[in-house]
Amino acid sequence: MTQRTRTLGAVLYPQFELLDLYGPLEMFGCLGEALRIVTIADQAGPVRSTPGPSTHAEFSYADAPACDLLLVPGGIGTFPQLKNTALLDFLRTRAPQCEVAMSVCSGSALYAAAGLLDGKSATTNKQFFSAIAAAGPKTNWVKEARWVEDGAYVTSSGVSAGTDMSLAVIARLWGRAAAEQIAAITEYEWQTDAARDPFARYLDQAKIAPELLGA
Amino acid sequence: MTQRTRTLGAVLYPQFELLDLYGPLEMFGCLGEALRIVTIADQAGPVRSTPGPSTHAEFSYADAPACDLLLVPGGIGTFPQLKNTALLDFLRTRAPQCEVAMSVCSGSALYAAAGLLDGKSATTNKQFFSAIAAAGPKTNWVKEARWVEDGAYVTSSGVSAGTDMSLAVIARLWGRAAAEQIAAITEYEWQTDAARDPFARYLDQAKIAPELLGA
Repeated sequence: MTQRTRTLGAVLYPQFELLDLYGPLEMFGCLGEALRIVTIADQAGPVRSTPGPSTHAEFSYADAPACDLLLVPGGIGTFPQLKNTALLDFLRTRAPQCEVAMSVCSGSALYAAAGLLDGKSATTNKQFFSAIAAAGPKTNWVKEARWVEDGAYVTSSGVSAGTDMSLAVIARLWGRAAAEQIAAITEYEWQTDAARDPFARYLDQAKIAPELLGA
Repeated sequence: MTQRTRTLGAVLYPQFELLDLYGPLEMFGCLGEALRIVTIADQAGPVRSTPGPSTHAEFSYADAPACDLLLVPGGIGTFPQLKNTALLDFLRTRAPQCEVAMSVCSGSALYAAAGLLDGKSATTNKQFFSAIAAAGPKTNWVKEARWVEDGAYVTSSGVSAGTDMSLAVIARLWGRAAAEQIAAITEYEWQTDAARDPFARYLDQAKIAPELLGA
């Protein structure tokens, strides 16, 4: 089977949440030559996650290649980025050109702040739901969903939900068999039901000590 | 509650598997000030994963700080590392000093090659089981286990299994409540039973096209 190689652009910023980024990149990374993954940030160079480890951004917004897919992770670092006009301008320009524009956890607040989720359905982290949803007053925020697909925009609930969402996007673009094969390779029990959300019961209950979140 | 800050050393090498590293680091990263995470490799600098994204190694083996925990990911890059005497010497020196020495997927082959799993029980990736187990002829390789704890050595099955293992290690060192709270924060459905292994049925069935593994 010959297919064109798509490009996935992963957007990094300081204090991104590790699994928001790497759950999806693990699954997409198993596509091999069918997908090129590139990392993009304010500027090329190391970008520090909340607990410390840094990922190398290969491109700045200015020189990032054309992307077929976008992935925006969340994390405690999302909130200061809501005022980063360079990042919001990048999303506003690039997301409408994508087949699929994804976010994990609070990452959907960045699409919302860019106006891209106006009139659309989306979801986000459950424990911090309302604080994140405030970024998109014209968005239909779904309180119970592992992930939500509204056309090209696919937004997941908190952290681990991004992995389930990614396999659904792989199934959409490369076929269900590819997604199932990747789940088996990675010994991952894929939760295939976007509507099943065992964490909705924690809505707005963010009682976690701030230090547990690395804040 | 005041606790000493422990240090977790994550060992990187070219073509490590992303989720092997970052599933665990997500969970451990939620411990906040209770744990410092450091990244260690042959030399400090960016280390490329199989699908492309690079993680910055902060330390070389020579200057790595004392570690209370070690984490060795697997990946297609494990196999050439079996001959990396600098890495094996590092593990041979450091692992016996740790409270817990962990591996994910084929990472256990590196402990085995260093002689650290002689006479111990361990597990690894199921689809590539025998190829990996060959690195430790004196190890009791467990064919059906999500992870195996043998004293200080805690080895997990493939890729995603490392996340379940990490929560078990968090429960061991910081208490069950901490592990459950972290699973809830990260919207992760923790599989708490080390003996439950739905992927054991794929034992040595690695029929995946090499390009899907990024080889």
